[in-house]
Amino acid sequence: MKGAAPRRDAPLGVFDSGLGGLTVVRALRAALPCEDIVYLGDTARVPYGTKGAATVTRYALGCAGHLVSRGVKAIVVACNTVSAVAPPRLRVELDLPVLGVIEPGARAAAAATRVFKVGVLATAGTIASGAYARALAACSTRIETYGQAAPLLVPLAEEGWTEGEVPALAARRYLAPLAAAGVDVVILGCTHYPLLFDVIEREAKAMLGPDVTILDSATVVAREVASFLRERDLLRGGALGADGAAAPGATRLLVTDVPKTFDETAARFLGERAGAAEQIDL
Amino acid sequence: MKGAAPRRDAPLGVFDSGLGGLTVVRALRAALPCEDIVYLGDTARVPYGTKGAATVTRYALGCAGHLVSRGVKAIVVACNTVSAVAPPRLRVELDLPVLGVIEPGARAAAAATRVFKVGVLATAGTIASGAYARALAACSTRIETYGQAAPLLVPLAEEGWTEGEVPALAARRYLAPLAAAGVDVVILGCTHYPLLFDVIEREAKAMLGPDVTILDSATVVAREVASFLRERDLLRGGALGADGAAAPGATRLLVTDVPKTFDETAARFLGERAGAAEQIDL
Repeated sequence: MKGAAPRRDAPLGVFDSGLGGLTVVRALRAALPCEDIVYLGDTARVPYGTKGAATVTRYALGCAGHLVSRGVKAIVVACNTVSAVAPPRLRVELDLPVLGVIEPGARAAAAATRVFKVGVLATAGTIASGAYARALAACSTRIETYGQAAPLLVPLAEEGWTEGEVPALAARRYLAPLAAAGVDVVILGCTHYPLLFDVIEREAKAMLGPDVTILDSATVVAREVASFLRERDLLRGGALGADGAAAPGATRLLVTDVPKTFDETAARFLGERAGAAEQIDL
Repeated sequence: MKGAAPRRDAPLGVFDSGLGGLTVVRALRAALPCEDIVYLGDTARVPYGTKGAATVTRYALGCAGHLVSRGVKAIVVACNTVSAVAPPRLRVELDLPVLGVIEPGARAAAAATRVFKVGVLATAGTIASGAYARALAACSTRIETYGQAAPLLVPLAEEGWTEGEVPALAARRYLAPLAAAGVDVVILGCTHYPLLFDVIEREAKAMLGPDVTILDSATVVAREVASFLRERDLLRGGALGADGAAAPGATRLLVTDVPKTFDETAARFLGERAGAAEQIDL
């Protein structure tokens, strides 16, 4: 579209299979307080992790297409499962910047490791996809990746059971093989895990040493989105945005199904009351 | 089919969305050692719990239809999600006895409760479906049902983390509201939970009193299948079967996808090595 107006003031689009991606919105809000954000959670079809790549890509195209219809200037794929399979296809079909969570996490890990051994905690599906191992190998062929599926962490985060003996014991169980492998960086490769950041970091420091780096992919991707928008002069309010002169941005929530515990769950991941969600059909 | 031979020697068909239903096979093996069993786990499409009722019914018809093509004499629906929505339709379409897990569990609970208060531990989807509350109300309108979603129990069972502090603390957390409500019967309404029977029973006795009844739906449905076959003279080897004169039955496993950890997971639920599974397309 030649001659189209600069789209600085358009919102950022973020989507995920469910509400876990609100941890990415929370990190984006912190990094980019002036941006408007439209979040789409495909709560009717969650989880994507058990579905095949072709189905996941089809669902992702539906979500991303809806965000395009809302006039977003870029799309952040908050879902690890989608980020593992769909971004190349989304970029081709949408003609719009598409940022996933896996490459930013892998790049940050590659920059942080001193021993070239990186651990990844994620769902069984993400580990089995090998996406982090591939992305890390693309950063440096010297890096060895140790993936560890951590099935208890999602239900713990969803229940808000993030303190005390149970999450600590679960974290210890999943960190043990990474400690044995001698990694010095651990990627939290699931949108739910930032809620367990403190307990994982505490246990990791005890087991892997005080210098271990814990990378939560929500924070890492938010940092990458911020540089991306800044470099392309796409910040809302232009350069003013960086000085905090623009008004604070708004967050709008779209869901394909309103789960019973929506308010409570959304607030947990977002870190604040979420307000009403609009239900849409895809 | 007038004049068809009695089908005593035909196998029992059992299906589930995944491998959790092997706990029902284990209970059937114990109750009916002479029966042949064909088990179908729809591992390619697991979990059903997040899918809509129409989709679940369609998948269930596919699974049950395949079992019919293998010549089974009756079908046991080991999956709580399917048992909540599909049995009436299956009975109409298949013209074959179809037994679900929910009604037997509810009937056993209604018979056991002295205070007319029954607790149900199950997945969030099964609790939200209200299927146990409806089935218990059908047994007696005096019964109050207290459902408690227990999201950590499935990953704990799948990981084989069934002893020690973590499963005990998880059990205590989920039993607390049931203790507060004063139930004297707890239904374990998920195929995975029999693996956690010991820890749940121990914590329940401590919290709800030594006379609490814990009903695992796998054992309850196996007992109901045994009476059903006996009453209709459908036991393998006929009356001889009851005397143990017939040879031990065989178990055959069909799956729609062979998960990486199939051997280990299947053995955990079945309680013995499962042998090779045949992969089928539905």
